Amino acid sequence: MEKPLIVVLGLGEMGYVHARNLSKVRRIRLGLACRRADVLNRAMEELCADKAFSSYEQALADAETYAVVIATSVETHPRLIEMAARARKHIFSEKPLGFDSETIKKSISEVQEAGVRFMTGFMRRWDPAFAMARQRVDNGEIGDPIVLKCTSGDAEYPEKYHKGGAKNSMWKDLAVHDIDLARWLMKSEVKSVYAISDALSYDTLKEYNDSDVGICVMQMESGAKVMVHLSRALWYGYNVTSELVGKTGTLRIGALKDVDIVQMQALKSSQVIAEDFRTRFADAFANEMRAFGELVCAKTNEEASKMMKENCQYATCCDGLRATAVSEALVRSVTSGVPENVKY
Amino acid sequence: MEKPLIVVLGLGEMGYVHARNLSKVRRIRLGLACRRADVLNRAMEELCADKAFSSYEQALADAETYAVVIATSVETHPRLIEMAARARKHIFSEKPLGFDSETIKKSISEVQEAGVRFMTGFMRRWDPAFAMARQRVDNGEIGDPIVLKCTSGDAEYPEKYHKGGAKNSMWKDLAVHDIDLARWLMKSEVKSVYAISDALSYDTLKEYNDSDVGICVMQMESGAKVMVHLSRALWYGYNVTSELVGKTGTLRIGALKDVDIVQMQALKSSQVIAEDFRTRFADAFANEMRAFGELVCAKTNEEASKMMKENCQYATCCDGLRATAVSEALVRSVTSGVPENVKY
Amino acid sequence: MEKPLIVVLGLGEMGYVHARNLSKVRRIRLGLACRRADVLNRAMEELCADKAFSSYEQALADAETYAVVIATSVETHPRLIEMAARARKHIFSEKPLGFDSETIKKSISEVQEAGVRFMTGFMRRWDPAFAMARQRVDNGEIGDPIVLKCTSGDAEYPEKYHKGGAKNSMWKDLAVHDIDLARWLMKSEVKSVYAISDALSYDTLKEYNDSDVGICVMQMESGAKVMVHLSRALWYGYNVTSELVGKTGTLRIGALKDVDIVQMQALKSSQVIAEDFRTRFADAFANEMRAFGELVCAKTNEEASKMMKENCQYATCCDGLRATAVSEALVRSVTSGVPENVKY
Amino acid sequence: MEKPLIVVLGLGEMGYVHARNLSKVRRIRLGLACRRADVLNRAMEELCADKAFSSYEQALADAETYAVVIATSVETHPRLIEMAARARKHIFSEKPLGFDSETIKKSISEVQEAGVRFMTGFMRRWDPAFAMARQRVDNGEIGDPIVLKCTSGDAEYPEKYHKGGAKNSMWKDLAVHDIDLARWLMKSEVKSVYAISDALSYDTLKEYNDSDVGICVMQMESGAKVMVHLSRALWYGYNVTSELVGKTGTLRIGALKDVDIVQMQALKSSQVIAEDFRTRFADAFANEMRAFGELVCAKTNEEASKMMKENCQYATCCDGLRATAVSEALVRSVTSGVPENVKY
Repeated sequence: MEKPLIVVLGLGEMGYVHARNLSKVRRIRLGLACRRADVLNRAMEELCADKAFSSYEQALADAETYAVVIATSVETHPRLIEMAARARKHIFSEKPLGFDSETIKKSISEVQEAGVRFMTGFMRRWDPAFAMARQRVDNGEIGDPIVLKCTSGDAEYPEKYHKGGAKNSMWKDLAVHDIDLARWLMKSEVKSVYAISDALSYDTLKEYNDSDVGICVMQMESGAKVMVHLSRALWYGYNVTSELVGKTGTLRIGALKDVDIVQMQALKSSQVIAEDFRTRFADAFANEMRAFGELVCAKTNEEASKMMKENCQYATCCDGLRATAVSEALVRSVTSGVPENVKY
Repeated sequence: MEKPLIVVLGLGEMGYVHARNLSKVRRIRLGLACRRADVLNRAMEELCADKAFSSYEQALADAETYAVVIATSVETHPRLIEMAARARKHIFSEKPLGFDSETIKKSISEVQEAGVRFMTGFMRRWDPAFAMARQRVDNGEIGDPIVLKCTSGDAEYPEKYHKGGAKNSMWKDLAVHDIDLARWLMKSEVKSVYAISDALSYDTLKEYNDSDVGICVMQMESGAKVMVHLSRALWYGYNVTSELVGKTGTLRIGALKDVDIVQMQALKSSQVIAEDFRTRFADAFANEMRAFGELVCAKTNEEASKMMKENCQYATCCDGLRATAVSEALVRSVTSGVPENVKY
Repeated sequence: MEKPLIVVLGLGEMGYVHARNLSKVRRIRLGLACRRADVLNRAMEELCADKAFSSYEQALADAETYAVVIATSVETHPRLIEMAARARKHIFSEKPLGFDSETIKKSISEVQEAGVRFMTGFMRRWDPAFAMARQRVDNGEIGDPIVLKCTSGDAEYPEKYHKGGAKNSMWKDLAVHDIDLARWLMKSEVKSVYAISDALSYDTLKEYNDSDVGICVMQMESGAKVMVHLSRALWYGYNVTSELVGKTGTLRIGALKDVDIVQMQALKSSQVIAEDFRTRFADAFANEMRAFGELVCAKTNEEASKMMKENCQYATCCDGLRATAVSEALVRSVTSGVPENVKY
Repeated sequence: MEKPLIVVLGLGEMGYVHARNLSKVRRIRLGLACRRADVLNRAMEELCADKAFSSYEQALADAETYAVVIATSVETHPRLIEMAARARKHIFSEKPLGFDSETIKKSISEVQEAGVRFMTGFMRRWDPAFAMARQRVDNGEIGDPIVLKCTSGDAEYPEKYHKGGAKNSMWKDLAVHDIDLARWLMKSEVKSVYAISDALSYDTLKEYNDSDVGICVMQMESGAKVMVHLSRALWYGYNVTSELVGKTGTLRIGALKDVDIVQMQALKSSQVIAEDFRTRFADAFANEMRAFGELVCAKTNEEASKMMKENCQYATCCDGLRATAVSEALVRSVTSGVPENVKY
């Protein structure tokens, strides 16, 4: 078989990260699709890519295109998933799969009908620390999971959203990661949730009913509990860390720094904190694309299906859907002020 | 002035800790009161104490007794506070001041009427790490506090309570520490709370409607949020640590270990975790008693009053009362399943 | 220009690491040279390589071969460097460049005569932590370097050397890394050294005058001092960490673990220690090959030369030679029992 | 028996530390001896001490004085030890016992003749971390000790010595701590040493042949090796930490910080480093005086002797003497430039 062509749709922040990581996978050919010619040309040159497309439609229409990586803005995900499925391309889609679960359900049904391979971009599963945590749970090293405590925080709120563009993004866009972690690490579904949020750092967000801090409690079917602290204004840097309490042992997962160096000066010892997800999850993103490459290179759909079953790190389209369903319950709870049940 | 006599009432676990620490305060004389003669004699000898009493009543009736440390079981606190106040003795009382706020209010009114000095035993305020945290808040080093995340966990649930003796103790006895931390570190009152609890490690607790894991969210008047993870079954050891998120900086307070030694062996580096509060808060308990000694040694009540005002580490009787009022709201929320307002 | 072909000579442990990392460099074609057909075939398939050679000579004779990575056993390095230089191939050679400085000098003169690009494989320079340390020195963040303290230890001594094959390998093969770090981080040459060694863990090594623990002190031209602890028997795992003391600040470089996860259980919190250089220096090896790829892709030798001058992470053939010259002084000191001057 | 009177001779830095710690020992009476009346009066008041002496001679002549703590300047140690021994007082002496081993031998012989109890002030043995390290060695947890690596550094060189007052103090005054650690933790005697030193931070020290950085290697009778980095100019703070490598496990002992709090701000997480020995060894000094109190309170010399034998934390006068003998070899090596044997 010739090397399959995987085309990255979109060369924004995430698209570029995925394209760079795919460029390290020797077993595939790399395509890039982007409307802005200058961005496209620069990326083709820098990443030594194999084929360029000036539109997503063009990429999807090309017979050579074997699979796509959807790294466009969230609202376009459902439509692109549908289009790719109908064009019989294998699909990797960034999370969340969309903003509401009804729309996602529809595009997923297209995927299932078309029988294409599908992987949801919950990259934390591919982070060495979170992956090792799941492995230890599977090994029985900490007993049944009882409590998960998560922190998911950005150093600051992107300026572009200061004027009202990101309402509920804390729950729909950020909390889905922690929801997926809870489901994945604790092997149970979320039953009910309670959430509060506020704008404590950015006053202007209040006008738009948007928030920069969120706290939620989730109850799992298994009886386990989850607490999440979400923030768009940590200031000190990027923080994605978790503590997983099991019946016999507890795991602290992740760290703030990405380089192991301590500087001692003027009565202080200090370490550099990761600025954002790019450095913190550099390995995770690389592992994720390598895994998608392997999924695409599988000789048959059966083989691909087996790979996904045997390696729990692969997130399915159902995982993507369920995370969004839980995030909808979180939004309802913020509004109602009381706990809410999740509707799948 | 002759050295004042401070009598420790009760030589159980906490009484002994306090007595040992008072024995290191050269400026005072140490009295011990305990009904069990053998325990009393052993302690007198070991701690080189100055005066023994075979009952609390005897100690309170003695004119020499200048101040008392109440370290008896919780249900006796209100009555002993009242008796000590009427006998015009200065008072240190272990937390909580009682099991319900109505009773506490009554004993506090006796204290205020008698005009005696009173200190509540929230020892975390005297822990070097928590004290430094408060100091940094006061210095403006982290900006206004926004979020406090606390873990308060024991290695295991005391066997004596397995048969139903400790219902609600997670909230009334343990959570009061975190409530006090929230009020003290964030300089705001608790407005409303949401709490859930469960018996996930000890099945027998369910029969008694008791729990071994608790999670709560608290909203402060200031807008700040608090998340607390309470546990009576951490197994790995004792864990009292907090993370205080401010508008410009964040503090991680406390640690699991109490000796700075790392052992590297067989592909693992490991540190010993503190077993219980005795080692974890050894310094805090010593500081607390030294501070009570200083309060007692103050020449006048005015001077004592000034000391307490100038050093925010001293917890007043009102601090004790408010913590219990919040814990009552937590218990109501566990029962109702929805958020509850605090009634002071 | 067509993508240049870089051929890895040798598919032992290090050859495979380099080949895998080169397979991630999209800009070059990957060749593999190995006498064992089965190993070669497996690697060609796994790494999706472009061209296979059944001998080093064949690879060097092929006009398509544009550059080579020498990853064979140390004693063959000088001859292969000479052969590659004469064949006008650009060269990456693993460290040390040979076992004695006289032989290395000869092969280097061939390199210089041929005018090919040359990079020595001191991968620590490409480790994010060591690289950041050098950058901070350059930024003046810690003032002039005064003292460097290094630990370089393997978990155990490779069994194959138990019968006398590795005499002086502690100095010739392992200490060269620390010598290079000292020269690179402190920007000064080694003037004199004092070294002792012993076989404290493996009794059989004594028979062969070989050792499993070594300690050395080095004095730099600048006045700075270096202490190194070398070990072939740490047992607990792999440890390459350093402390660089500057006139105004100090850096602790590197860590024992490679995954950020802490497990708390039975009164212990523990972290996994890296087993060997493969995980500890995974990023460094990847960065190193990417950098060699860039060096090879430079359009002219002038451009390549400029790249090496502007990026101090590239180790030259002179760096390789000097490290071996210092290691010879260390061996002399072990024998004489007194400090020895370095002869360059 | 009445409470024995222990008199602290000298109220300088160390005298005050010891006096404050003795004031916490309820079982003894505290005496203070100091020529400066104002210092003496302030200390009597602050520490609530029992008896004041305006000279060391007066204290030693008083029949009530049962034991003394010698905390005067080093050059007076031998004479005061002799005087105290002749006056039949039990003795605690700060380290080093003197500046040269001949003089120390003489004063020790007086001690032995008088039969008084004697404890040398190597406080590191009473530090919880170093004590736990020794205990683990005794438990066989790390196998036979092979290598000890020590750092002993002050933040800066005391200004009073800038004009030549402290020649060799790095070896005679500071290194004795590490020598004692080596002997104590590795249970072996120092056979030979190699040492270098320099003035890299304070230029003026060179004029006085004094130094601010020292490095030494020591070989133990057992075959174990020791490396020590000494500094009078760490700038970043106080650092006394060690790594003890055993045949089956390794220990990292001590830490830079004394309060467990991490501040995260502006892409950095930082911890406060201890400024000097007062905070770093606060627990050690307290334990040491409590232990001396117990030694003094022992009913008979036999009992005291048994206590010292059973608790290896007590340093004897021989331990004090041997440390100085090794420090003399270090000074010889600095001068000769070659390794030197220790002469006991």
